[in-house]
Amino acid sequence: MAQRYSLPGRVHLTGAGPGSAKLLTLRALELLREADVVLHDDLVSAEVLAMIPARAAVHNVGKRCGVKKTTQEEINRRMIAAARSGQTVVRLKGGDPLIFGRTQEEISALREAGVEFEIVPGITAAAAAAAAAQIPLTDRQSASKVVFVSNHPSPEKGSRDWHRSIATDTTLVFYMPGRDLGTLTKELADSGLGEDTPCLVVSQATQTGQKLIRATVRGLTALPRLPAPSLLIVGTAVAEARADEWFFAGSGEDTEKSGEFEEITLDLAEPNELAPS
Amino acid sequence: MAQRYSLPGRVHLTGAGPGSAKLLTLRALELLREADVVLHDDLVSAEVLAMIPARAAVHNVGKRCGVKKTTQEEINRRMIAAARSGQTVVRLKGGDPLIFGRTQEEISALREAGVEFEIVPGITAAAAAAAAAQIPLTDRQSASKVVFVSNHPSPEKGSRDWHRSIATDTTLVFYMPGRDLGTLTKELADSGLGEDTPCLVVSQATQTGQKLIRATVRGLTALPRLPAPSLLIVGTAVAEARADEWFFAGSGEDTEKSGEFEEITLDLAEPNELAPS
Repeated sequence: MAQRYSLPGRVHLTGAGPGSAKLLTLRALELLREADVVLHDDLVSAEVLAMIPARAAVHNVGKRCGVKKTTQEEINRRMIAAARSGQTVVRLKGGDPLIFGRTQEEISALREAGVEFEIVPGITAAAAAAAAAQIPLTDRQSASKVVFVSNHPSPEKGSRDWHRSIATDTTLVFYMPGRDLGTLTKELADSGLGEDTPCLVVSQATQTGQKLIRATVRGLTALPRLPAPSLLIVGTAVAEARADEWFFAGSGEDTEKSGEFEEITLDLAEPNELAPS
Repeated sequence: MAQRYSLPGRVHLTGAGPGSAKLLTLRALELLREADVVLHDDLVSAEVLAMIPARAAVHNVGKRCGVKKTTQEEINRRMIAAARSGQTVVRLKGGDPLIFGRTQEEISALREAGVEFEIVPGITAAAAAAAAAQIPLTDRQSASKVVFVSNHPSPEKGSRDWHRSIATDTTLVFYMPGRDLGTLTKELADSGLGEDTPCLVVSQATQTGQKLIRATVRGLTALPRLPAPSLLIVGTAVAEARADEWFFAGSGEDTEKSGEFEEITLDLAEPNELAPS
């Protein structure tokens, strides 16, 4: 089970999508209409910002030309303070918050502060660009995979190795991994990933039958069969996984615990180092 | 400029998102409410299908357990026939239509038939799963890129090479590629991609300032600076790019040509083989 929190107020880490207000999700629009405070990145479009009612306090906390107007610490502080005072806070980010959105820092701060939060996915820029250009990002004939890369590597990283090493420093997402994971397990090991690399299977994400199962590369072959659609996510980022129980159903105060969501830790022969905290 | 069509009726290749109706886009909901015919994949959730008014004809054309109920040719035929009879057709696909959605076959059929179509992006399953599990798909510390892979390679492909060769058989998406593309151009060439590999830059996708620029790996260094947000897409899939001028703004009959959208072919020293058809 995910952790439950008791402090008042909530933060909604929300994807604003690529720019067109038509590409907001219903959930994002609902949250913008309920928000007391909106803290948005610089790239959120004027068209999306125009959807926010006048009563909300709206602040641009983004960076322009690489210069941060507001430090990450200050953003965290403001989110937490507003939520603790009982306000509904929307932290609005261009595209999807979990793809090049620097959201992990905010998740960590909110967890540490014990502030409830929700993550609302958004249309990522790549999907919008592909739609605008009428091109598939994957194709049965010509492209079996798609890689999203930033051209601005972290200053801490010395090497720009995106084309040389795909197994490390990467989150791998396998769509519809199927039942027989033996071959995939071997390939993951061959590619240089350690057997202890964390894995997560998500079945029926955002639906009432949603299930999350933690495993490692070593334990993948023991996975039970789960209802479609399901995904397998592999990589360091998975270690921080917790079940988000309430973001998708209902609205306002009705959103909590509205479905049957389950988080399972796979029962392995070896001790599972990724048991939920 | 994108091709213009004159036949009545339209097909909307629409992402249904991961399952929760709250994660539909405003545009998808609007289309479902206007549709005369909805042709949906098997994985579209009951919750999303429940948003379709009773007056629309709804058909499941998906596959279950790998068995196609309806062939691709039959789906194409039905989309085209309904559009030609003046009906509004929504082709509804789980997640995003351009990520493992087998949409290229339908785009090609619609183009060949001269039927107008729109592509509406959806929340892809990976973003929803990450939100459900509260994990970033990219992270400044641990994951500079994310790869979406299918575990069901095309039967035509002999090798399962996702971890060995990232440059070929892949669509690469660079977020915010920046101004200086010299290093990136060299890396792309080093990674084994031919200098003629098609590239596309999309600036301000879905916004009124949207611009698309075609180039090749060789011509990347000559790209002009474009307003953020922008993406660089590299790979075979790009060769089929055309500007989608009308999907995102307005509703119903007002959607056509509602903004300033531009498609530019980069003026290279060498002949540009990717000039718009």
